[in-house]
Amino acid sequence: MEITIRDIIELLINKQYKQLRATLENMYPYEIAALFNELNKEYVPVAFRLLPKELAAETFVEMDSDAQELLIKSFSDSELKEVIEELYVDDAVDIVEEMPANVVRRMLAQATPEMRRSINEILKYPELSAGSIMTTEFVELKSFMSVTEAITRIRRTGVDKETIDVCYVTAGDRKLIGVISLRTLILAEEDSIVADLMEINVISVNTLEDREEAANMFNKYNVTTLPVVDNESRLVGIITVDDAIEVIEEEVTEDIEKMAAIVPGDKPYLKTGVFETWMRRIPWLLLLMISATFTGGIINSFEKALTTVPILISFIPMLMDTGGNAGGQTSVTIIRSMAIGDVEMRDIFRVIWKELRTSILCGMTLAAVGFVKILLVDNMIFKMNVSYTEAFVICVTIMITVIFAKIVGCVLPMFAKRIGLDPAVMASPFITTIVDAISLSIFFIFATWFLL
Amino acid sequence: MEITIRDIIELLINKQYKQLRATLENMYPYEIAALFNELNKEYVPVAFRLLPKELAAETFVEMDSDAQELLIKSFSDSELKEVIEELYVDDAVDIVEEMPANVVRRMLAQATPEMRRSINEILKYPELSAGSIMTTEFVELKSFMSVTEAITRIRRTGVDKETIDVCYVTAGDRKLIGVISLRTLILAEEDSIVADLMEINVISVNTLEDREEAANMFNKYNVTTLPVVDNESRLVGIITVDDAIEVIEEEVTEDIEKMAAIVPGDKPYLKTGVFETWMRRIPWLLLLMISATFTGGIINSFEKALTTVPILISFIPMLMDTGGNAGGQTSVTIIRSMAIGDVEMRDIFRVIWKELRTSILCGMTLAAVGFVKILLVDNMIFKMNVSYTEAFVICVTIMITVIFAKIVGCVLPMFAKRIGLDPAVMASPFITTIVDAISLSIFFIFATWFLL
Repeated sequence: MEITIRDIIELLINKQYKQLRATLENMYPYEIAALFNELNKEYVPVAFRLLPKELAAETFVEMDSDAQELLIKSFSDSELKEVIEELYVDDAVDIVEEMPANVVRRMLAQATPEMRRSINEILKYPELSAGSIMTTEFVELKSFMSVTEAITRIRRTGVDKETIDVCYVTAGDRKLIGVISLRTLILAEEDSIVADLMEINVISVNTLEDREEAANMFNKYNVTTLPVVDNESRLVGIITVDDAIEVIEEEVTEDIEKMAAIVPGDKPYLKTGVFETWMRRIPWLLLLMISATFTGGIINSFEKALTTVPILISFIPMLMDTGGNAGGQTSVTIIRSMAIGDVEMRDIFRVIWKELRTSILCGMTLAAVGFVKILLVDNMIFKMNVSYTEAFVICVTIMITVIFAKIVGCVLPMFAKRIGLDPAVMASPFITTIVDAISLSIFFIFATWFLL
Repeated sequence: MEITIRDIIELLINKQYKQLRATLENMYPYEIAALFNELNKEYVPVAFRLLPKELAAETFVEMDSDAQELLIKSFSDSELKEVIEELYVDDAVDIVEEMPANVVRRMLAQATPEMRRSINEILKYPELSAGSIMTTEFVELKSFMSVTEAITRIRRTGVDKETIDVCYVTAGDRKLIGVISLRTLILAEEDSIVADLMEINVISVNTLEDREEAANMFNKYNVTTLPVVDNESRLVGIITVDDAIEVIEEEVTEDIEKMAAIVPGDKPYLKTGVFETWMRRIPWLLLLMISATFTGGIINSFEKALTTVPILISFIPMLMDTGGNAGGQTSVTIIRSMAIGDVEMRDIFRVIWKELRTSILCGMTLAAVGFVKILLVDNMIFKMNVSYTEAFVICVTIMITVIFAKIVGCVLPMFAKRIGLDPAVMASPFITTIVDAISLSIFFIFATWFLL
């Protein structure tokens, strides 16, 4: 039985609160939040107040920041306090980061002093750093504890922690010296000592490390939490796997946007205003439009070839598109392979060698098919009267263009990374502009040689 | 201290096995596997045998399938048995899926009957289904158990399970009726009953569900394991979060490849042969090259306009590229938004309305800047002598092209999804071909009106 927004509104209007509450209680926070995000402003606070405390907090976390802001404004101080108390610190930070200053002040005023301290602690780390996505709620054990003592400590302190599945062992100076899972503790003898059971080879991340690097470590090292340490190796927080997945999703979206010549933003498409969407798209469109001047200049300088053999003009779109597509295939493959660590800088010559051979194969295929197509389709069906020499010039140009496109497509992203730029901006649109210029130059040089 | 392949080879050649073992023991499986993948074939078996049993199995899982195959072939039966015993069932299945038939037969022969049964069970699910990525090793509890009984059961059966952090509660007929975390059990009173503590609102996935859908549920519902049930709601396995992350990464790569007009494959770039790379790239290149015939035909049919006003030819690349980029921005945004669930079919009119307004803004900006550029750069610097009317035709064409491109860019991917196609194939390369034809037609129609 799927509940729709209409059902909720109907229950609200008829004041059938008990039934609505029963319905909502059987749903997941994600689903309730999705409904609330779509609900008219006036209904959200009423519906939200029907949720039991814990579910309310979980739903609140999943909602849009607009809806969250609306709700906070409708809360009494004690209601706000109740919701904040149920939040995990990292979720509270995420919310605080999106709220306007006056709402943040109200939120911090209602938080417990400890929560306030933790939020401020996390907020001080730079955006996009590992520190900014960590939580300061984790279970800390000491190496001299017995299993029984450790479990007692977990039972005493674990209720408020985001996870107790993995516990961290620190020395007196809070230096991280080991990791032990609840699983290990449960499966061990009760009088064993933590020091003998813990894993001392702990993978950790510095607070200032890039959050994307941190997120990628979950998959590499097969962990479900990652400890975050400061420059003195002191444990300051942990990153949980749900945040890692969210970072991976966000970073992928960002990479995809960059590859499509869009300045990345952090709001979902439908929540981004028209003006902001325009702001994120226009810079690259302008830059690439102006770069095309160069290509136009090339055409202009070969005007003689074009007026003598006007049939060549018809093949400009095919050449440009094929070059752009061939280069885009390679650049996107290399960008993604570098992002997931399959390709590194030191592989550059292997990459070029592979692309060279692939591009010769692709180029030859396209040239051969193109030649046949010109003779059978263009000449026989469309009566274009392309001569053999003209067809030859067009097809050799295709082949050389594809080879150039694929070499440029692999070298540029790697070069960008080398000099510290984001390789993702070197994707299809950028490559297309360069390859256009190359392909048209080749085309006209050949045309001049063979046809004039 | 970072260890390199050269260090390992040196230690191996000098037979300093003890030291090499000590070095490897302090590394993570992922790092050892990365080194072994690069190591010369002859060294791998020697180095691998130095690893302690558990680390050996963990490293084995992380290695390339080529290196795994090589190792298996070098193993004695008892060595193979030892490694397989340490593997989790889902990892064993991943390996089996990549091996040639004779290696699979040897592996299955050395597996315990129980392991063999589990592997065969998972192998029977279709590729890309939730069933194919699950593991059959999980902890099953009964609702009438007390906390003490449940923990005793976990301690007795948990050693071999991939995770014990989340346990599933089933009825007599193995129907899934609840979920309870080890955390809840540890924090609860010892004489509480599982039925009172367990969450009965269990999110689960059918064995035949798409694995991408299953992976996306981890982020939506904030879970670290997902139970997999058959058509009768019987619990048959669980998916762990590490496999979910891997699926997300793989599916993203696949989407990115499709958007770049590449037929997706499942091997990393450097492990894919030149011939296979060619096979994955040539179909779309051919198709798109042949589609460009259409655009060529348009140019051809307006030959009169071009020979009368040859300056127009110089602006063809700019028009085509700007249209392609504008359309690509939109299509890629919509494809990604649909993939992460931000945009659904029912949003189509909101999307079109947003794109219409954004494209008018973008189109006007580009037209205005383009006009100024033609007068200042093309005419004054490059002496191209474009008349005001010609500049007007070019810039109005840019504006209309951008509007068309963005509308086509949002409608096509949504339409594709509607009729059951993968929206990702409707990305830039495909859109470019369509937009080329539109933009050139507009260009020549205007040129004929105003300039002839």
